[in-house]
This record gives sequence, C-alpha cells and structure tokens, in this order.
Amino acid sequence: MSERRDLVSEHHPALLKVAELGEHGVLERIRARVPPAPPWVTVGIGDDAAVVEPMRGRLDVVTTDAMVEGVHFDRAFGTPADLGHKALAINLSDLAAMGAEPRIGVLSLVLPPDLLIVDLDQLLDGLLVLAAQHRLALVGGNLARSPGPLCINVTAIGSARRRTVLTRNGVQPKDGLYVTGSIGGAAAGLEWLKAHSQAPDTNTEMAACVTRFLRPQPRVRAGLRVARNRIATAAMDLSDGLADAVTQLTRPPGLGAVIEADTIPVQDAARRWFAARGHDPIVAALSGGEDYELLFTLPERPRSRARLLAQLVKPLSVTRIGTITAAPGLVLRRTTGDEPLPPGFSHF
Amino acid sequence: MSERRDLVSEHHPALLKVAELGEHGVLERIRARVPPAPPWVTVGIGDDAAVVEPMRGRLDVVTTDAMVEGVHFDRAFGTPADLGHKALAINLSDLAAMGAEPRIGVLSLVLPPDLLIVDLDQLLDGLLVLAAQHRLALVGGNLARSPGPLCINVTAIGSARRRTVLTRNGVQPKDGLYVTGSIGGAAAGLEWLKAHSQAPDTNTEMAACVTRFLRPQPRVRAGLRVARNRIATAAMDLSDGLADAVTQLTRPPGLGAVIEADTIPVQDAARRWFAARGHDPIVAALSGGEDYELLFTLPERPRSRARLLAQLVKPLSVTRIGTITAAPGLVLRRTTGDEPLPPGFSHF
Repeated sequence: MSERRDLVSEHHPALLKVAELGEHGVLERIRARVPPAPPWVTVGIGDDAAVVEPMRGRLDVVTTDAMVEGVHFDRAFGTPADLGHKALAINLSDLAAMGAEPRIGVLSLVLPPDLLIVDLDQLLDGLLVLAAQHRLALVGGNLARSPGPLCINVTAIGSARRRTVLTRNGVQPKDGLYVTGSIGGAAAGLEWLKAHSQAPDTNTEMAACVTRFLRPQPRVRAGLRVARNRIATAAMDLSDGLADAVTQLTRPPGLGAVIEADTIPVQDAARRWFAARGHDPIVAALSGGEDYELLFTLPERPRSRARLLAQLVKPLSVTRIGTITAAPGLVLRRTTGDEPLPPGFSHF
Repeated sequence: MSERRDLVSEHHPALLKVAELGEHGVLERIRARVPPAPPWVTVGIGDDAAVVEPMRGRLDVVTTDAMVEGVHFDRAFGTPADLGHKALAINLSDLAAMGAEPRIGVLSLVLPPDLLIVDLDQLLDGLLVLAAQHRLALVGGNLARSPGPLCINVTAIGSARRRTVLTRNGVQPKDGLYVTGSIGGAAAGLEWLKAHSQAPDTNTEMAACVTRFLRPQPRVRAGLRVARNRIATAAMDLSDGLADAVTQLTRPPGLGAVIEADTIPVQDAARRWFAARGHDPIVAALSGGEDYELLFTLPERPRSRARLLAQLVKPLSVTRIGTITAAPGLVLRRTTGDEPLPPGFSHF
C-alpha cells in the first residue's frame, strides 16, 4: 500500500500531505490558485508584505477573526471549502456591520503537517470563491505548522466613507431595533451536526440550518446600502448572537432595551428543532451565535425610515424586534410577562 | 490551598485564568492596557472593525505573521513579554524590509483556557512597549479559545511612498549583497535554550544570542532610511535565514549569487558556540533563521552607494557578503574552493 501511495503521490501533488510538499511548495500552490490581483494592488503575494493603494478619500476598515479546530469547527462536519468560505465570511460580516466595502484580505494558516494538499486546495477555493463574489483580493498571508489544531486567521480590510461609517455607538433611547433575515438557524444546524456527525440530506429542512452554520452569507450589500443612506444610528453583526448584540449596543450608561419575544424572526426549521427538544425556541435563537445577520438601530422618527430600511436590505427581510430604552436593563417581553434577556453565545 | 487561591483570585484578577475571567472580561482588560489611539484612528478597539485614516498620498503595506506554541516558541524559554514583543517584531521586520513606516496592528489571540491573566497582561505589555517604540497603534483584534497551543497572530499595516517602496524584485546581475548587523545569534540562542531549558545568566556571552532569539529588534529605521534614499534594488528580511533570503532574491530566471564565506558577519558568541559543537559556523549562520536583519542588493556603481548605505543604517553595521551573478546557481566561496549554498531554515 505505502509503495503504491508513494507512486501515486509523486504524480499527484494534491494527494501529498502539507509536510511532504514543504513550505515553499505549499506557497507556490497557493499562489497558483489566487487570481491575478487588481491594478491597485502594487505588490501581491510573495514579498515581505503586500502593498496596496488606499481608496482616495476613504477610510480603511480593518478586522481580524480566527477559526480554530476543536473550538469553532470540526473537520468532520463540513468540507474544507466550507471552512475557507466561513473563515472569510466572518470577517466580511464585520466589514458589513461597519458599512464598509471589502477590498483586501491576508490569510494566516496554521496547518497540521498531515493535512492533505487536496484539502488545502479546497479550503483555499472556498475562500477565493467568496472573495471573488465580494471583490476582495487576497494579497498575502503566512504559513505555519500546527502541533495540533488547524487554525485559519483572516484579516480583511475594506473602505468606507468618513461620513457614512456605521459603528456601535450612536444608539439613542426610543431607537427601534431591527434585525435582517432570520436567526437561530446556525445554532440549530450546529446542534444537528453534533447529534449526527455528518451533513444532512440536502432536501431536509435541517439542511438549510446546517448550511447557515457551515456557510454563513455575510450581509455586505445590506450593510453598505444602509450605511450610504445614513438611516441607522448604529449597527453590529450577530456573530455572538442577538442577545449579545443587544447587550453590546446598550453598553453606554443609561441605555437599556425591550425585546418583543413574538416578533423575533426565528428560522422555521430551527423553531421546530428547538421545540421538539423541549427548548424554548426564542431563548435558543437569542442565545445562539453565528447567524451573521445584521442588527441596526433606527431613530423613532420619521417612520418612513423603517420602510426605507426594508427597501435597502432587499432581498433580505428585516424585522423590528424591540426598542432602546432610557432605563438600564434588558427585558424580554412576552405575552406572559417580562423576563431578563438571556445571555449571549460565547466562543471562549 | 484551593480555598486560599479562590480568595486571592477574587481580589486579584491577574491571578485568574483566562477561562475564569471570560471573553468580555479579558477584552476589557486588554482594552484598559492599550494606550489612547492617535487622532487618525477613527474607531479603535471594541467595534466590529477598526477604522483608520490612510496616510495621504501613501500606499498601505500589509503583513501578517503567526507564532505558534510548540513550533515557534516554548513558554519555558522566555517570558510572556518576550512572546508579545516577538509576535509584533516579526511583523515590523517585514514592514522594515519594504521600507514602510509602521502605523497600525491588529492582534488575534488563540488562548489556552488555563493561561494566567498575569501572563496575558505581560504578553500584551511586551507587544505594546515595542509598538510604542515604533509608533504603531494597536487598533483591534480577536480572542479565541485554544484546544492546545497558544497562538499569536499579528497583522501590521504600514505606509510607504509609491516611489520608494522596497520589494524583492529589481535585483540585477553584479549587484552587491549587503547584510545589516550580524547573523547566527538567534540560531545559537535557540540551541542554547533547547540544551538548558531556561534563560542564561545575563552576564554570559550566550545571553546576547538568547536575547536575539527571544527579542529580535526589527530594523525599521534602517529599512525606512534605505528606502527613502532609493539606493537599493531590492530588500528582504532574514526571518528564514540568509541562505533562504539569497535564494528568494535570485528567484527571477537567469540570476544566481556568489557568497564570500569569510565576509559573513557571524555573531562572535554564535561562532564560538557552533565551533565548540563541531558545526561549521558559516553553514550554521547561513541556515539559521530568525535573526531579522535586512538583506539589501545595491548596484555595483556608483561605489559611493555602499558608503551611503553604511551611513544610513548606523548605528547598525552593514557588510558586503557577495555578488549577484548572471549565471544561475548559488555558490558559497571559501578559500578552499566553491560549495553549493546550504539550504535555508524552514518553520514548517
């Protein structure tokens, strides 16, 4: 067997392991997969650093996020392409929450020596397909060996106009809280994967939840359009869940929030998944992370702003889920009475 | 004992472990240690992303580098402050090799849950002291839990003038090869640490080598001054050793190099260390990595350029170690004859 494998791997570098191809071999292979850089990239992959022309009159928006095997993902749950997609998606979601347009990314890979080159190829392709969709150029990175887990760290840089950049500050009492799309799907999908240790059949309703967990779609266009129209007082993405996001946006002293439980747009399949397991779907959706939807706050008036928001984020839906209060405290309002908002999701 | 520890840790968060303080607690603690951001940082730590004003008329220079426990470092070898220093230093060295001025950094930490907060504090302080020396603002980052090794990933962004940015391209036949400072020290220091598993007495000659390994000094000022004076055809830093750097600079087809063995500025203590162990100090210094000196190529004429280079990099020394050739092949020239250049250092 091992003799045959040697013969095969000699002719098919994809069947080699990372350690067998070596650092320069892996770098060459990555370089060959990355499409030609746009003209504003002066120096791309292969030098000590990348050199990029900033966008005239714009600000640089910088974010970094890591995915760690055994903490954020299990290689058995999805494909290597899913990992590459998600490692970039979580960074694009941060840019979306700032109203920034993606421009460049650098990729730092910490690779177990026995990772197959074919898996590395697919990881990179997953990242590059999403990068192309959002016109982000991969301009550099770093390779290191891992003594254990696979770690993928992406730093993404976007550009934003000074007057339209969206931050977490600016929230005012009486602002409405609006969330795009639906939530709870990623948390239900993760539970499904933990229970089954493999992906579901594509035609089941849980497949959509699993896909949300494995391949989140960053709301880049929605973030950009809302920012440019300057209708929101604040924005943030739902990486650590809706409850956490509401907590973060109401950090300035003297702010609180009331969340109307019945309005929370819980993904249908997730609602059924949680209910079938005896969990309150509202609490599960509020606490679950990784939906990567956007949360906006909008001033109470003019009321036309809410209609404009719905127009801007199309084809996504957007739902008003509550109101910022001038009194501290985070309240979950149900028909049966008020409760404290459950805590958010922690990656830590 | 454990009861006492609980009492103590309750009053001294520094004695807690990372997992005990929690993600938001750790974030707050990091935020409190980072000095106020300069005015060109529009949004600093604590939002979805950092927002930074680019330097007018300059290019952005972006690099990323990771340090992984068990691969790049052993926690027993140095202090947490050494780790923080080095994680930034290796990135600053890349900026130096491009002739870029450091501006901002983002820090992605993958932390074992049992890491002590006091160690995290010191790690951060080691990074922040070096950041202040080079006027780099830490503007953001990411925290994740590690299932094993401590990983520190820094992305650093600098600025450079379009006409003066230094790349690895531009090397011409007959160019002279010049290296700053001395080499081999970091490799000898690492060998010393592996043999002794602790730091040497500060008054021994090996202490200097160990310090070079643990706390490399990025040659930022030298890189900037050489770039601004436009005297070099190419530059690169010696992260993977001198032999590797010569290999990289002569990648364009039709280029080679002759390295004069006797001219290589091997650090004295390292020379003695390698010789005492029966290793050729020249080969050890060429193959050893992590000295983070700079390698420049200079056109043959005018000869005054070499003198100007020496002026510009002061107080560092600079040594001509060889010549680029129009014939492929990398030669190590000794008084006893020519040899092939040994291979470089691999982190992989």
